[in-house]
Amino acid sequence: MAGSTFGNQFRITTWGESHGAGVGVVIDGCPAGIELCEADIQKMLNKRKPGQSKFTTPRKEDDAVEILSGVFEGKTTGTPISMAVHNKTQRSGDYSEISGYYRPGHADFTFDEKYGFRDYRGGGRSSGRETIGRVAAGAVALKILERLGIKVCAYAKEIGGIAVSEDNFDINEAENNPFRMPDAKAAERVSEYAEGKMREGNSVGGIIECVIDGVMPGIGEPVFDKLDANLAKAVMSVGAVKGFEIGSGFDAARATGLENNDAFVMRDGKVAKKTNNSGGTLGGMSDGSQIVFRAAIKPTPSVSAVQETVNKSGEDIQVSVKGRHDPMIVPRAVVVVEAMAALVLVDLIFENMTAKIDNIVKFYKG
Amino acid sequence: MAGSTFGNQFRITTWGESHGAGVGVVIDGCPAGIELCEADIQKMLNKRKPGQSKFTTPRKEDDAVEILSGVFEGKTTGTPISMAVHNKTQRSGDYSEISGYYRPGHADFTFDEKYGFRDYRGGGRSSGRETIGRVAAGAVALKILERLGIKVCAYAKEIGGIAVSEDNFDINEAENNPFRMPDAKAAERVSEYAEGKMREGNSVGGIIECVIDGVMPGIGEPVFDKLDANLAKAVMSVGAVKGFEIGSGFDAARATGLENNDAFVMRDGKVAKKTNNSGGTLGGMSDGSQIVFRAAIKPTPSVSAVQETVNKSGEDIQVSVKGRHDPMIVPRAVVVVEAMAALVLVDLIFENMTAKIDNIVKFYKG
Amino acid sequence: MAGSTFGNQFRITTWGESHGAGVGVVIDGCPAGIELCEADIQKMLNKRKPGQSKFTTPRKEDDAVEILSGVFEGKTTGTPISMAVHNKTQRSGDYSEISGYYRPGHADFTFDEKYGFRDYRGGGRSSGRETIGRVAAGAVALKILERLGIKVCAYAKEIGGIAVSEDNFDINEAENNPFRMPDAKAAERVSEYAEGKMREGNSVGGIIECVIDGVMPGIGEPVFDKLDANLAKAVMSVGAVKGFEIGSGFDAARATGLENNDAFVMRDGKVAKKTNNSGGTLGGMSDGSQIVFRAAIKPTPSVSAVQETVNKSGEDIQVSVKGRHDPMIVPRAVVVVEAMAALVLVDLIFENMTAKIDNIVKFYKG
Amino acid sequence: MAGSTFGNQFRITTWGESHGAGVGVVIDGCPAGIELCEADIQKMLNKRKPGQSKFTTPRKEDDAVEILSGVFEGKTTGTPISMAVHNKTQRSGDYSEISGYYRPGHADFTFDEKYGFRDYRGGGRSSGRETIGRVAAGAVALKILERLGIKVCAYAKEIGGIAVSEDNFDINEAENNPFRMPDAKAAERVSEYAEGKMREGNSVGGIIECVIDGVMPGIGEPVFDKLDANLAKAVMSVGAVKGFEIGSGFDAARATGLENNDAFVMRDGKVAKKTNNSGGTLGGMSDGSQIVFRAAIKPTPSVSAVQETVNKSGEDIQVSVKGRHDPMIVPRAVVVVEAMAALVLVDLIFENMTAKIDNIVKFYKG
Repeated sequence: MAGSTFGNQFRITTWGESHGAGVGVVIDGCPAGIELCEADIQKMLNKRKPGQSKFTTPRKEDDAVEILSGVFEGKTTGTPISMAVHNKTQRSGDYSEISGYYRPGHADFTFDEKYGFRDYRGGGRSSGRETIGRVAAGAVALKILERLGIKVCAYAKEIGGIAVSEDNFDINEAENNPFRMPDAKAAERVSEYAEGKMREGNSVGGIIECVIDGVMPGIGEPVFDKLDANLAKAVMSVGAVKGFEIGSGFDAARATGLENNDAFVMRDGKVAKKTNNSGGTLGGMSDGSQIVFRAAIKPTPSVSAVQETVNKSGEDIQVSVKGRHDPMIVPRAVVVVEAMAALVLVDLIFENMTAKIDNIVKFYKG
Repeated sequence: MAGSTFGNQFRITTWGESHGAGVGVVIDGCPAGIELCEADIQKMLNKRKPGQSKFTTPRKEDDAVEILSGVFEGKTTGTPISMAVHNKTQRSGDYSEISGYYRPGHADFTFDEKYGFRDYRGGGRSSGRETIGRVAAGAVALKILERLGIKVCAYAKEIGGIAVSEDNFDINEAENNPFRMPDAKAAERVSEYAEGKMREGNSVGGIIECVIDGVMPGIGEPVFDKLDANLAKAVMSVGAVKGFEIGSGFDAARATGLENNDAFVMRDGKVAKKTNNSGGTLGGMSDGSQIVFRAAIKPTPSVSAVQETVNKSGEDIQVSVKGRHDPMIVPRAVVVVEAMAALVLVDLIFENMTAKIDNIVKFYKG
Repeated sequence: MAGSTFGNQFRITTWGESHGAGVGVVIDGCPAGIELCEADIQKMLNKRKPGQSKFTTPRKEDDAVEILSGVFEGKTTGTPISMAVHNKTQRSGDYSEISGYYRPGHADFTFDEKYGFRDYRGGGRSSGRETIGRVAAGAVALKILERLGIKVCAYAKEIGGIAVSEDNFDINEAENNPFRMPDAKAAERVSEYAEGKMREGNSVGGIIECVIDGVMPGIGEPVFDKLDANLAKAVMSVGAVKGFEIGSGFDAARATGLENNDAFVMRDGKVAKKTNNSGGTLGGMSDGSQIVFRAAIKPTPSVSAVQETVNKSGEDIQVSVKGRHDPMIVPRAVVVVEAMAALVLVDLIFENMTAKIDNIVKFYKG
Repeated sequence: MAGSTFGNQFRITTWGESHGAGVGVVIDGCPAGIELCEADIQKMLNKRKPGQSKFTTPRKEDDAVEILSGVFEGKTTGTPISMAVHNKTQRSGDYSEISGYYRPGHADFTFDEKYGFRDYRGGGRSSGRETIGRVAAGAVALKILERLGIKVCAYAKEIGGIAVSEDNFDINEAENNPFRMPDAKAAERVSEYAEGKMREGNSVGGIIECVIDGVMPGIGEPVFDKLDANLAKAVMSVGAVKGFEIGSGFDAARATGLENNDAFVMRDGKVAKKTNNSGGTLGGMSDGSQIVFRAAIKPTPSVSAVQETVNKSGEDIQVSVKGRHDPMIVPRAVVVVEAMAALVLVDLIFENMTAKIDNIVKFYKG
């Protein structure tokens, strides 16, 4: 398995390079009977589209998705859903220079080492455009979650060290600023900070938080396919993500058991938790609380300021990476994190249907 | 896939509960010709054995491993290696009380929700004993890595907020103290701090760091099966792990691109990096540098101090969890992290053998 | 994946060699709540036990199974079920001679070529004892099918060219003769024929037929994981099977469309078929009819008459394979075929639960 | 896994319905450095194209393939290869009638049962057009096999009961007649026979044989992923295949051990076999001989003569299936069988690279 496939039961395979004919995804294992049209996908893809503010690359990409199979008379048929986005603005000329050297922080060197050569145009397979397939598939996963009353919501928690404050938190605000930050004041400070870094030809990183509401208890498998382990893989597989934590995360390492344990309490006749340091999972399975995780995003490696590197002739050189790059990836990565979370959840929700024999017998025999 | 299997080409399946007949693992995909005996496995298992100091549970577990298949005349045969450890000290009586309520921070509630009931003896499948299978398989993976010149080394980086200092770092010291901390002074402070917490009936968490030397460039697959993504899943699938980061990790989120990018330089005629903020991977593939990652371990949820919870009759109650528990998991989890890292590496190193057609032709045609 | 694992959702991994410590299986993905004890497994294993008549090897094997995990208070827990049978009569001495040459019709040569050496004792991993794990897992699968009203029944259709006649067919008779033939007269003729071949130091083959009743329509996936394709793999993966056919099978190749098509008719208000040339599947999915397939079993390759072969020094030699061998495999393979069919069915029945979104929503939201 | 994916290391996922936007395939796990262009694929696809004689459907399908990713500067890059063929002649009107009833021998009924409704246009996902993705991927697999000196060749062994005779066998002749029969005289008789059946509005079946030369010994895994088991699944997963046999196949069931065993002999200093009843595998691994297997193909279920069936209102009716159908599938299925065999081989050849530790060490350390 060369790793372009994700999931077991709701399984996606992405394909495509930034400057080839296009990018896309095939979903295998999508149930029949889901109402689905291209607009459902497009809405989600538009959230990751570049060119939405001065803080993202000025490249114009239409990213118009086509559904090529698996939908008939407006509904999914149960057979593979193939979706493609054609690449339009292929200014490969921009990239001819970088074919000769290794950009710091990029996968140029490792691609060459692994495969003997690389598609050097715009990062090839390791371009951010690879996430288009993930987001398109995530849009379908989200339609399934919606039917089950589950909501996935991610936003920028922190950019360039400037964090959302609990007091100002307003989720609706995340749609109003180019950073997808649910705090208008923090967004203003980020704007100022980021502009300064852009002027230096530099870039900034940040932290994305994702909260998921409505997950029934018991989702996730108790050993290797823990809900949190699968989320970690899903999120860490997005380029530029360098860390993952769930619930109290790294802070848990400094807490005591009495501080970190969430007491169980009865609430409205149901078992609930007083706090949610666990982030919604216990033993790898959802515990009925809100699922809360965070991803650390590194600053965009493409910076226009001068950097040291080596060329393919083995010489130390200095370069300044030209091209139309995002000074920060965080805002556009928010929707990718939502997509990956949705894919993990649907897969494990499907898996969970065979956890109890009585449920299986009831399913088939009524 | 109900998630007790890990890996694709070097694939392990663990089984067993803390108070059943035993625990074990089957490795499928282990190459033929590796010298292997029970002592190779035992050495590794002994590192996670309880009862090694007052900071771990006083339970005595011999954990003597048996190799049941896949080895003939001292060498692996290429067929599945089945290994088992019989459970000996099964004081199930200890646990009868907890069958009636949900321990905070444990998987009691989620097991009941998922499966309709649970093996309540000692945590059942979610007991730390589940990791015995992982460690036994990891010992075999480490023998393969050894043949390839790769070394995996983990240690406690921080316990209860007390961190190893760079100045005092001495890897040999990690074998001298019960915390596996490579810093004698830090270990002393941890000892004092932990004793205090134990007296309160409380517990502490910490951070494990793992460094891997000698990995050739190009290991890992560029999209979903990135080396870092697979490490994240592997490590997050260990109970009590709440966070994962590679290289500069969460700090990268606060750095700028110019700070965080690792400049390439020529060193001894080879491409090298000036710094290693990336933690040894670029685009999900190893870059030839040391691989460095960290895991956040929560404090043991079993504490003897009084806690609030609910019982199965839906009543709010107060409990004090009795039994022989570890006041901290970190020291015993160190070897589990090493095992998981080894399993990920072997799997991706095998996967990488088919990356180039010329290598395949050479392999078969010479 | 080195191929000792079978199934996706109800997934088994077998291990063990004929003369190692034992053989066994781990089932991952078995639902919780199934009543299961060792006797359930033993009953099935006893059907493949040697020494039940003069037509099977006189080796005595107790094959007493132990359940090591996954069952608590008489019910499956949803966690992996590990089962083992210890090897008792390990007369390895019997086999030392064959270590030096390649037995015709056996895997000695191919094992040496693939792995560089082999466990030559009794065939090692390619021994018939490998099927113990399959049968033990199959016994669990059959318990699930029973809950769903599905019955799997295999028998010898033909041995040494002597076939069961439709007129004499009596399924109860299959339990009365050592050949598991549902025709007393045919069994008598086989007995005579086989005795003659045994006197010559020769062996005989045959055909096993398997019929499955009660499968709901729609089981199987329409492309690669067709019900018939998965059955074919399952059955062809049993040593000594050289052919597989479903329904009219190879006869369909000589029929016309009008002869071979099964007309649909209404029967008791339901869609049914007038004939069953399809063998119970259409387009890879069960059609609600009886599923009927056959497997061709080659004669046991171990014959005591003199045969030509080569030794490991590259010399042409003549050998007579000593040891306690079955003059025919068919009767003992019957239960293995039942087990494999059950494993395939359970896996695809689980898979099918996510075919329709409405069913998933109903499952979770009621 | 909803079953549109095949293979582990060289893994394909097909998508598409006969009357949707198109059909295609994504290959994940193809090595870098293989010269590949659309003509390589097209050559293979043209062999399954309809309209090549009066014995295949008169539909005109251009089936022009596009490579959308994974190839750069004429070579595979190691990243997923996405290939698509757009559907052009979509005369959906032809099929509106059949939406109301179940065609005998087709998957109409089972699709409705499984998914609640179906894409009734031309069979939807169970159309023969689904094999385009398999053949396109098979063309890439064949390029890999070519580099390893392996040749895959299939042909019609028998059509309508008329078999190729050993005396007249001429493999070049298979390209000269519309039946892909390597026997000119047999082809003539088939032509006459088939014309008669076509006049009756009837259809015919047949047997395809596939021979593979040059496979090194040791390919295939000894338990579930036996070379023959994987070939059986691959071939049985092609629509209309009802039986599979390898080597002496069903005849082995009637032979004795002495007749069926292949004696080993030294030939040119190498271990060889006097006969090849095994069909090139022993214990599920290639033995260095020619691999020979056969597939039984049922007669096309679409016949224009009147048949009985039921409609969706539950009434018994009579129908005559209109449309442009193949009176026989065999000639066009020949290339599909070649493709499936190539996919199985490449996958297991890749798998085999990790069979011996010494080979792995040599691969990486030289």
